[in-house]
Amino acid sequence: MSDALVIFTPSGKRGRFAPGTPVLTAARQLGVDLDSVCGGRGICSKCQITPGYGSFSKHGVTVASDALSEWNAVEQRYKDKRGLIEGRRLGCQARIQGDVVIDVPPESQLHRQVVRKAASARAIQMDPATRLYYVEVAEPDMHEPSGDLERLSAALRSQWNIPAIEAGPHILRKLQPTLRKGSWSVTVAVFADHCGGAARVLDIWPGFYEGPLLGLAIDLGSTTIAAHLTDLRDGSVVASGGIMNPQIRFGEDLMSRVSYAMMNPGGDTEMTASVRLALNALAESVAAEAGADPTTIMEAVVVCNPVMHHLFLGIDPVELGQAPFALATSGALALPAREVELSALNPEARLYTLPCIAGHVGADAAAVALSEAPEKSDDLVLIVDVGTNAEILLGNKTRVLACSSPTGPAFEGAQISSGQRAAPGAIERIEIDPATMEPRFKVIGSDLWSTEPGFSEATEKTGVTGICGSGIIEAVAEMRMAGIVDSAGLIGGPEQTGTARCIAEGRTYAYLIHDATAEGGPRITVTQGDIRAIQLAKAALYAGARLLMDELGVDKVDRVVLAGAFGAHISAKHAMVLGMIPDCPLEKVTSAGNAAGTGARIALCNIAARADIEAQVARIHKVETAIEPRFQEHFVSASAIPHATDTFPELSRIVTLPERNHNTGGSGEGGRRRGRSRG
Amino acid sequence: MSDALVIFTPSGKRGRFAPGTPVLTAARQLGVDLDSVCGGRGICSKCQITPGYGSFSKHGVTVASDALSEWNAVEQRYKDKRGLIEGRRLGCQARIQGDVVIDVPPESQLHRQVVRKAASARAIQMDPATRLYYVEVAEPDMHEPSGDLERLSAALRSQWNIPAIEAGPHILRKLQPTLRKGSWSVTVAVFADHCGGAARVLDIWPGFYEGPLLGLAIDLGSTTIAAHLTDLRDGSVVASGGIMNPQIRFGEDLMSRVSYAMMNPGGDTEMTASVRLALNALAESVAAEAGADPTTIMEAVVVCNPVMHHLFLGIDPVELGQAPFALATSGALALPAREVELSALNPEARLYTLPCIAGHVGADAAAVALSEAPEKSDDLVLIVDVGTNAEILLGNKTRVLACSSPTGPAFEGAQISSGQRAAPGAIERIEIDPATMEPRFKVIGSDLWSTEPGFSEATEKTGVTGICGSGIIEAVAEMRMAGIVDSAGLIGGPEQTGTARCIAEGRTYAYLIHDATAEGGPRITVTQGDIRAIQLAKAALYAGARLLMDELGVDKVDRVVLAGAFGAHISAKHAMVLGMIPDCPLEKVTSAGNAAGTGARIALCNIAARADIEAQVARIHKVETAIEPRFQEHFVSASAIPHATDTFPELSRIVTLPERNHNTGGSGEGGRRRGRSRG
Repeated sequence: MSDALVIFTPSGKRGRFAPGTPVLTAARQLGVDLDSVCGGRGICSKCQITPGYGSFSKHGVTVASDALSEWNAVEQRYKDKRGLIEGRRLGCQARIQGDVVIDVPPESQLHRQVVRKAASARAIQMDPATRLYYVEVAEPDMHEPSGDLERLSAALRSQWNIPAIEAGPHILRKLQPTLRKGSWSVTVAVFADHCGGAARVLDIWPGFYEGPLLGLAIDLGSTTIAAHLTDLRDGSVVASGGIMNPQIRFGEDLMSRVSYAMMNPGGDTEMTASVRLALNALAESVAAEAGADPTTIMEAVVVCNPVMHHLFLGIDPVELGQAPFALATSGALALPAREVELSALNPEARLYTLPCIAGHVGADAAAVALSEAPEKSDDLVLIVDVGTNAEILLGNKTRVLACSSPTGPAFEGAQISSGQRAAPGAIERIEIDPATMEPRFKVIGSDLWSTEPGFSEATEKTGVTGICGSGIIEAVAEMRMAGIVDSAGLIGGPEQTGTARCIAEGRTYAYLIHDATAEGGPRITVTQGDIRAIQLAKAALYAGARLLMDELGVDKVDRVVLAGAFGAHISAKHAMVLGMIPDCPLEKVTSAGNAAGTGARIALCNIAARADIEAQVARIHKVETAIEPRFQEHFVSASAIPHATDTFPELSRIVTLPERNHNTGGSGEGGRRRGRSRG
Repeated sequence: MSDALVIFTPSGKRGRFAPGTPVLTAARQLGVDLDSVCGGRGICSKCQITPGYGSFSKHGVTVASDALSEWNAVEQRYKDKRGLIEGRRLGCQARIQGDVVIDVPPESQLHRQVVRKAASARAIQMDPATRLYYVEVAEPDMHEPSGDLERLSAALRSQWNIPAIEAGPHILRKLQPTLRKGSWSVTVAVFADHCGGAARVLDIWPGFYEGPLLGLAIDLGSTTIAAHLTDLRDGSVVASGGIMNPQIRFGEDLMSRVSYAMMNPGGDTEMTASVRLALNALAESVAAEAGADPTTIMEAVVVCNPVMHHLFLGIDPVELGQAPFALATSGALALPAREVELSALNPEARLYTLPCIAGHVGADAAAVALSEAPEKSDDLVLIVDVGTNAEILLGNKTRVLACSSPTGPAFEGAQISSGQRAAPGAIERIEIDPATMEPRFKVIGSDLWSTEPGFSEATEKTGVTGICGSGIIEAVAEMRMAGIVDSAGLIGGPEQTGTARCIAEGRTYAYLIHDATAEGGPRITVTQGDIRAIQLAKAALYAGARLLMDELGVDKVDRVVLAGAFGAHISAKHAMVLGMIPDCPLEKVTSAGNAAGTGARIALCNIAARADIEAQVARIHKVETAIEPRFQEHFVSASAIPHATDTFPELSRIVTLPERNHNTGGSGEGGRRRGRSRG
């Protein structure tokens, strides 16, 4: 009987195989991406395939009904127990008997792609550092004495082509009872990253273990910490959660934490302990949400700004508070998670932190770069991640530049008279009628405009408590468009504006949005001081972007990506009215959602991405705003607020961006937002 | 001016160099073994050389008095401050001006050999995993932002050819203040072993740090733990110490500890904690003896038997108590010392454990193999390390075999009626006059024979308390030579032996050595039970050796090496009378001292030796005595005690071995003995 032609789809890989060859074996020999954890023993069912029968004119073959061996008992047992889609076979059981076309469904692909909602986003290709392997280990033999670990290593070498493994005392302790409990069959979680060291056994289970096998992508913000608990087998997010950064009690913003460390001996270790405690609590809570044991978390990837990076790693951040803003290390770190006291995870869990770009441009900016890949963009893209500092990336395939701009906390609702963090009750959207100068607004927790019936009832529990970051941007922009504020940023009095909502406050005016003092509630205004704070913040952001544009010698960018929770919630129109971002067609302004968190997830799921971003960060050109005289020039000239329709005639035909709402989880995938206080 | 001829002695390496080239530079380019810690900055003085002047007919050169640049201020400052031997120059300061012959004294050689007292022993070539490097690090630059670690790494690469380094959070924490305190000059301890991973920073000091830089070679015995604190710069032992293994309270011998672990849940972790506690205490005490901070201990090498190996690493030893005696791991381990809670050492200290040969033949036997190198021996050598189990190695360049033999604790003085461990007051030497049947003896703590004047005074404090291991061997052998014991091992009564010292004890006799009952002291005898215990032990030892000889197909060995404290203290003559070891010319029986401890020191000082022994252990052929029927046959036939002069006519002309004495620290270098209870 001659060899049979086997064609795999969708890869199109083909070859001839002797009759009797299992489909899994043929796939491996051809390099077809077909998953298997049990190594072809009919246990894991990861190698499901769909044979095609009949005529395939495209491939020039006709597949007979007996092209594969008959449905066997192993397959029947699996189907009875766990179910199997009609038409599917197990690749390790079905043997080739004649010419055949075999489809590998997406969920059987080892390097399958993770579906992401945001169309613009980079796909996540699964190639995690930690994988499960089922092995059958030789029993000990007095005549050829060898250790159990050495026989496990030999089994992994012969059955899985893993050349060498190492194991710490914790695994050595588990090894012997587990091998015996599993009657010399075990499943091991093996970690092998892009650094090229020996593969490392992270855990071991008797017999066949199919999961959970989890990783935690952590976006460690100054204000909030967000985590996505991710299945390392298929990249799916099984739970997400957020927690306030407990370091807030040492200082709201980063510089006050650096000061705390400088002024209080041991202050940095106190802050380190508190953030590690919070991370453990967060790991436990997301694991609980997913109904998983936190010790099944094998890896954590952390992205954060440089100060949080140092405080998390246990490094005094004092050098980051003064020129030349030297990082203790700028490189990526790969180390045991227990070395940074992430004790809630598996005892052998690994930690990876992305590289920092510069003393002000952290691993979070690197994660944004990983997610948005400016170095792969044909057109010139400006990526802005706004927090207390704005991280700004500008570039395309030719060159990528980065800087950080000290926007201050105004965009986070801090230092704003009625400002507050994004929480139910905070005004997040606002419109001012240019004819009547009357406002209407929405608060977080309700979909109704304040002028709509039922608003009072809908907000009865939360009240209307203040303005969050995205709300203050809309307020100022709307005030400018209505003519309440002039281009210099001055609020007019009632006689100029014709509305009693412009009320005197000392020697300047404020615009009254909401007054609940009669019911014992707050009076929410935008004061002249608020306008000044927003002017400073937006000027800093704009100046940073302009500085990078100068460095590239360009006057405009092709598109703008707003990253971060803030970016997900602000209105591009209003941002442009304010002059936060440079000129760009409105439809070319997109939100990337929590790009930093997405970058962390990419690094968690794909080790090549870790190598990529390490190389990419080394190539990114860093621009230090603090020492660039032109930054100051841009800053000064950017403080004015141009009338929108002067600068952007297109704004007169209002472009409606997709509805954004704090209650729907924002745009971009991932659900939870990083740093609600930024929104 | 043409290039000058430079000849280095003793290596004979030569080359031509442009005038002005520093001697250190020339040495490096030629691969001459010339030390330097400061990299040629005139700080460390490790590169001292002695130029030769005048005619060197052997080399065909005449060296002019101005062949090197003039004595300079740096050299004068060093000489004033620290002293410099007349005629010496600093290799980094003296520049080549003409043809010259330059001698590199031994102490300036980077890979210098450590002097060992025992002539037979393998020299220790210095090539430790951890070294000091003085580097000047670039200051941070805002325009080219990079982390301090990355600039340290670049400095080590350019100044010391270390391609890449990694550093844990502990070092990252120290890095920034240390660099600034040292004004960007620091000394780092860098670890790079034979495993080929990235070099690792273990510690960092501001400016030039010249030591201490210490390593701890630990011989972890069942009864005692011995440690040699070793200078990693030159291999010298700066302090030694011993401590009882606190696990004794869980069981005197290994199998009773295994039983304890089996019978008591958590018993193994209890034993693990106790031995780690003892190791930390020992590290602190030897460091204190050397006047050093224990955190300057950068590495520890541990050798021990398989049960101690598992208990130390935190592995339940239960599998070692039953066939097939499977080790959790047989391979060498290289890991952070903190992972096994050696918290007294430097926080970044590294641990290395030698490989185990088999379930009964441990890392201690591997260390003996490393020290005695049977695989390099031209003649056939039998190496015996006696403890509760005897580890036996037999081989030569062609092949090496190993086994373990269950001798029991009799050789350690246990299960002997008047037995005790080797401590002051214990009888360690004994002679019986064949004419009078009267004994004379020496006790540990005194050099006098019991029949010499002043013995009572000399032993007043200690008394005569019992017989230690080496004493009981001499006693039994002397009893046999005097005719008190027959070849079957029976003690004769007074009528047969003609001495009243043979006293009835039940249905058998005992030989009275010392009676202090009148003064309230002990009555020390050798009973029939003692003879039986020694017969069993020596038969087991002999049978093990014979089994290996059978395996090799030989009837005799060329030489015998007695290893361990026991080996250092027993008399070869008496051992041969007893039939403990196979036939061999008496002068071919040598003691290797604490060969296991020496092996640990070799592994500590030389990373190639680690690779060597790992490869060697894989090649050693293991013989499991427990399942070999011939072991039982040999054991039975070896229980008789041949009359010495029957078997070894040469014994009639008594060969006097060098005087051995417990008070002089034993033979072999290293001072302290491993497991005094074995002596």
